[in-house]
Amino acid sequence: MEQWDYPSTVSLREVGPRDGLQAEPVVLDTAYKVQLVDQLSAAGLPRIEVTSFVSPEWLPQMADAEAVMAGIARRPGTVYSVLVPNLRGAERALTTGPDEITLFLSASATHNMKNVHRSIAESLTGFRGIMERVSGNIPVSAVIVTAFGCPYEGGVPEQNVLNLARQLVDMGIAEITLGDTVGVAHPRQVVNLVQRFQMVLPEVHLGLHFHDNRGTALANLLAALAAGASRFETALGGIGGSPFSPGAGGNLATEDAVYLLESMGVHTGVDLEKLIATTGQLIGQLGHSVPSRVYLAGGRMVAKGGTQ
Amino acid sequence: MEQWDYPSTVSLREVGPRDGLQAEPVVLDTAYKVQLVDQLSAAGLPRIEVTSFVSPEWLPQMADAEAVMAGIARRPGTVYSVLVPNLRGAERALTTGPDEITLFLSASATHNMKNVHRSIAESLTGFRGIMERVSGNIPVSAVIVTAFGCPYEGGVPEQNVLNLARQLVDMGIAEITLGDTVGVAHPRQVVNLVQRFQMVLPEVHLGLHFHDNRGTALANLLAALAAGASRFETALGGIGGSPFSPGAGGNLATEDAVYLLESMGVHTGVDLEKLIATTGQLIGQLGHSVPSRVYLAGGRMVAKGGTQ
Repeated sequence: MEQWDYPSTVSLREVGPRDGLQAEPVVLDTAYKVQLVDQLSAAGLPRIEVTSFVSPEWLPQMADAEAVMAGIARRPGTVYSVLVPNLRGAERALTTGPDEITLFLSASATHNMKNVHRSIAESLTGFRGIMERVSGNIPVSAVIVTAFGCPYEGGVPEQNVLNLARQLVDMGIAEITLGDTVGVAHPRQVVNLVQRFQMVLPEVHLGLHFHDNRGTALANLLAALAAGASRFETALGGIGGSPFSPGAGGNLATEDAVYLLESMGVHTGVDLEKLIATTGQLIGQLGHSVPSRVYLAGGRMVAKGGTQ
Repeated sequence: MEQWDYPSTVSLREVGPRDGLQAEPVVLDTAYKVQLVDQLSAAGLPRIEVTSFVSPEWLPQMADAEAVMAGIARRPGTVYSVLVPNLRGAERALTTGPDEITLFLSASATHNMKNVHRSIAESLTGFRGIMERVSGNIPVSAVIVTAFGCPYEGGVPEQNVLNLARQLVDMGIAEITLGDTVGVAHPRQVVNLVQRFQMVLPEVHLGLHFHDNRGTALANLLAALAAGASRFETALGGIGGSPFSPGAGGNLATEDAVYLLESMGVHTGVDLEKLIATTGQLIGQLGHSVPSRVYLAGGRMVAKGGTQ
């Protein structure tokens, strides 16, 4: 490596209120959820995934989606997005005035079937119905999960991911995020896929969503950054579904990403101290610790050293 | 980044038996320590820091250094090193037939004083005495701790680190390792220092020892690798002194490093499954969990996925 270039600014989308809270056994109060989103916008997160319009029978944690959207204070400049699994969810979402809607499907057929009980073709058909209903009135983005590997099928061919992304773009979806749903991506794979994606879909603002089950999320973020990516999804405290171990988390912690990026001189616009204070309150609500390392260690050097 | 090159093979030095165990409140049995080192060599770790010849009053955990060295089975090809703080320690170490001796000092004066109660100049004088005593009969390496930042002084100038390394090399020390003792290094800093070090001291096989207090260790390893470094120090399970939080660890976990490197196609020679089994037994001995993510998640994809 002779010279190392990377974007000087990145855009983070905070997914803790949705991706994080939906995985928690406890259903938090609506008032606290509203406060959490407002604290996140006050901390400078430019984009926040507020909630998910899934069936309350499936995910009771998200049953108050309309109330949360109605309760939050819309900070000028902050983009509030919501996750939508189907047309029914989109209808509900549109009554709440989100700034954008996010759809999701898997790059691997088995995971898509287990996750949303549809084939990939059925998911794409559903998306077309949603795009028609939205009819260009609001930006729609999509997350391709298991883009770096599937817990059922193993490796996922790059070309499948790129073909899927192309079909999504062709139906009017402007922004694609690739998810490493089970934390199996590695930096070389990330560099290769990011570079190829940017080559074949240069008009798309690619996002990456890394899971940290094996501690690789920050290394993968760094690899993506070095390959030119500048949009990432993270969750406060590193909360989020971990199928492995309670408290071990799944999502890359927003604090850890912000700390790394800002220390390298990459601008996030996020106030780390406010973020850490917000995590402290979140821990009180959840009743358990969170995996973020920066939350534990603090965002600054400390006045106590280890011994060699 | 147009093309991404990195070494195809790295050399890991396992420091768990020394750097890890010295930070534990419990003093483990000598027989178990011997077993641990033998398990590590059987798992393919090419270099193992077995113990430290410090005063037993200072570190009762290392009081059985001679017995551990006498007990281990010397696996052909494995390099067994010991840490030595002073001439007295070197005298003791030399009776046990280590393959190499490691010295250490801080890049920052305050940390060196707090850690070993000497000025940096006094440490260097001590090293010269040890080098005379060893008189070329055994390789001597050195670790420069706080090389990326000091908990007392804050930033550490690159030039100080390079000057110190030059003085060590001039007295016959062949190998230098730079330690991020409190986990404050960031990837850009790592790339810069590694590149400069290799430019001014091309004859030295540079090593890096990253701490993971803020979750940055793997990202820093990746940055160092991309800058051409190919030698790293890690500790089984991620054990080691954390001034912050019990169980949160300090050292980069060997499992996590091996998983990342091998997944990228970088050869370590380490059998990850054997390593994970060894960590399982270590946890039983320590009586607490360890921070390694790969230990928790497993080194392979699992047959259970999260939901998006």
